[in-house]
Amino acid sequence: MTRKVSIALDAMGGDFGPDVVVPAAFAVLERDDSVNLSLVGLPETLEDARRAAGGRYDGRLRYVLATEVVGMHERPAEAVRRKKNSSLHLSIQEVKDGMADACVSAGNTGALTATARYILKRLPGIDRPAIISAVPGLNGPSFMLDLGANLGCSAQHLLQFALMGSVVAEGILDIERASIGLLNIGEEELKGNEVVREAGELLTRSSLNYIGFVEGNDIFSGKANVIVSDGFVGNVALKTMEGVASLISSYLHEEFRKNILRKVQGLAASPALNALRDRLDARRYNGASLVGLNGVVIKSHGGADKLAFETAVHMAIIEARKGVPLQIGRLIEDQSAECIRA
Amino acid sequence: MTRKVSIALDAMGGDFGPDVVVPAAFAVLERDDSVNLSLVGLPETLEDARRAAGGRYDGRLRYVLATEVVGMHERPAEAVRRKKNSSLHLSIQEVKDGMADACVSAGNTGALTATARYILKRLPGIDRPAIISAVPGLNGPSFMLDLGANLGCSAQHLLQFALMGSVVAEGILDIERASIGLLNIGEEELKGNEVVREAGELLTRSSLNYIGFVEGNDIFSGKANVIVSDGFVGNVALKTMEGVASLISSYLHEEFRKNILRKVQGLAASPALNALRDRLDARRYNGASLVGLNGVVIKSHGGADKLAFETAVHMAIIEARKGVPLQIGRLIEDQSAECIRA
Repeated sequence: MTRKVSIALDAMGGDFGPDVVVPAAFAVLERDDSVNLSLVGLPETLEDARRAAGGRYDGRLRYVLATEVVGMHERPAEAVRRKKNSSLHLSIQEVKDGMADACVSAGNTGALTATARYILKRLPGIDRPAIISAVPGLNGPSFMLDLGANLGCSAQHLLQFALMGSVVAEGILDIERASIGLLNIGEEELKGNEVVREAGELLTRSSLNYIGFVEGNDIFSGKANVIVSDGFVGNVALKTMEGVASLISSYLHEEFRKNILRKVQGLAASPALNALRDRLDARRYNGASLVGLNGVVIKSHGGADKLAFETAVHMAIIEARKGVPLQIGRLIEDQSAECIRA
Repeated sequence: MTRKVSIALDAMGGDFGPDVVVPAAFAVLERDDSVNLSLVGLPETLEDARRAAGGRYDGRLRYVLATEVVGMHERPAEAVRRKKNSSLHLSIQEVKDGMADACVSAGNTGALTATARYILKRLPGIDRPAIISAVPGLNGPSFMLDLGANLGCSAQHLLQFALMGSVVAEGILDIERASIGLLNIGEEELKGNEVVREAGELLTRSSLNYIGFVEGNDIFSGKANVIVSDGFVGNVALKTMEGVASLISSYLHEEFRKNILRKVQGLAASPALNALRDRLDARRYNGASLVGLNGVVIKSHGGADKLAFETAVHMAIIEARKGVPLQIGRLIEDQSAECIRA
C-alpha cells in the first residue's frame, strides 16, 4: 500500500500565485488519492479555493490562513525576520509542526532558502543545505547540485552534496547506488582546481558510487546519475543549458518560417518537433529540492504553469514518501562511522 | 589594400595532423592571396606537401623542418623543456622570430599554452594569458573568456580578461566599444561571489563598455559581445553548451527515425534541419585565441576537419592584421594611465 503523505502548498508564491497553485492542487488530489494537501494563503484566496473545490476534496484539503505575502524581490533576511505570517513562512512551518511531510513554493528563492534553514534547521553532519534538480539526459534525467545555494565550497561540502544527491537520485529514479560524477575541467586526475581534486580523493575513499571527474558535456550523456559542483558553477551550467535550448529553439523557429515552402515543411515535421519540445520541456523538470534540512522543501520555478507546478508537487510527494531527510541523516552517520573506523 | 600577413601552421598537431592541415593550407592560399603560410612539420610530411602543392604556391608557402612531435597526452612542462624541435615549438618560434605574424596549432592545449608563454612571454601589464573563443548567439557570435587557462582568478585578472576580450571582439566583429558582461549568478549587484562583485566595481570604473552582470542564459542572447569569467566556470559553460547541442541533436535524430512516417517527415524537413545544423556547426566557431602574449597564437580543436581548421586560420589572419597584441598593450597602458590620474 502506498504511504499517505500530506503536502503544504504556498498558494501565493510565483508569478501567478493561486491561479496556478489552486488548479494544480485539485489535479494532484484527483490523480493520487493517497495525497492530502494544505493550501496556505490569504483569506480571500482560501475562500475562492474553497468555493472552487465545492466540497469535492473534503478531509483531504486543508486551508491554512496566512496574513501576508513575501515579495519576489524582498531581501531574504527581512523576509525571515518580519514575515512570520506569510504563506511562505507558514508553509514551511507546517512541515516543522508535523502537519505536512513536505512543502512546495514558487516564491522568492532566497527567502525560501533562508526561512527553511531558520525553521527546519540543518541535518546533523550537513554544513550547507544545497539545491538539487533533475536535468534532461540521453538516457533519462540525472540530478545536479548545488545549483546556487552555496558559493565557494570546500571539498568536505562537495562530499556532502554527493551524499545528498545520491539519496535524492536513488529515491526519485528508483535505483540503487546512484553513480556520482564531480564536475571538473578535464577528466584526468591532474586537472582542475584544488578543491575539486581534494573532493575527488574524499569521494574515492567514501562508500558512494563515485565514478570520477566529468565535464560539462557529460551532464547530459548519462555518464553519472548525480553531477556535483559548487553552487556558482552549477548555477552557470544550469542557466547555460537553458540558454542553449532556447537559442536552438529560436533557430528552428526561424528556419521553419523562412518562406512558404519551409512553412509547409515545418507543418510536415511538426509531430517530431512537438515530440522534441515535449522532451526538452522545462516543465517536466520543474521542482528543485532544498536538501540537507530536517524536512522536504521544494522550490518551483516562479513562472511555472499548472503542469510545471504539478511536477514540483510530485517531487515533494516522492521525497516525502521515501523519507529523503531521514535517509540523508542515516547515510551521514554511516560515513562518519566509516571515517572513524578508517 | 589588405595588409599581407604570414601564418605558421603546425602541420603535425591534432587528431589528423597533415591530412587536415595541408589541404586547409592550400584552400587558404587559394582563397586569399594576401596571405603567406609556413608549414611546420616532419621531413616526410613536408616532402608530401611540397609534392601535393606542385609548385602552385611558389614564394607564398614556406616549409619549416621539425624533427619531433608533441603527443596529445604529453605533460606541458616536459614538452616545453624537451621538445624544442617539435612542430608545435617551432610554429610559435616562427612568430617570435618575426617570420610569421601568427601561428595555428591543433595540438596538445596544455603544451601549446605553456610553450607559447615560454617563448612569447606575457604582454606588460597582463598577469594571466587567457583563452578566448567565439560562441553562437541570437544576433551572431559573441566572445567568451577565459575558457580554461586560469583557475581561481582575482578581480584584477577578470578586468584584464575583459580588456583583452574587448580588443578581440572589436577586431573580429569589426565593431567599436564591444559590450562586456561579467558572468555571475543573478543580475543584481548583491549577488554572486566576492571576486566577481569586486571585478564588477573595477569594470564600472574602467573605460570599457561594461554592461554589468550576465547569467549563463545571456551568453547566447546577444546581451554582451564579450562574456568574462574565471577559466573553470568558462570551461564548464563551454562544455555544457556543447553537451546540450549534442543532446538536442540526438533527440531530433531519434524523433525523425521513430517510424516510416516520421522518416518521410524528416526528409521534408531536411532543408531547415540542415540549415540549423550549419548555424550550430562547431566548425564555424573553431579557433580559440591565446591572448595576453607578445604574438598571436590560435588553438584549433584537436578533432578539427579541413573546414574547421580553415576557420581557425582565418581567426589568426584577422588577429594578425588587426595587431591584437599591440592593441591589447596600448589599452593596458591607457588603463594604467587612467588609474594613475584617478
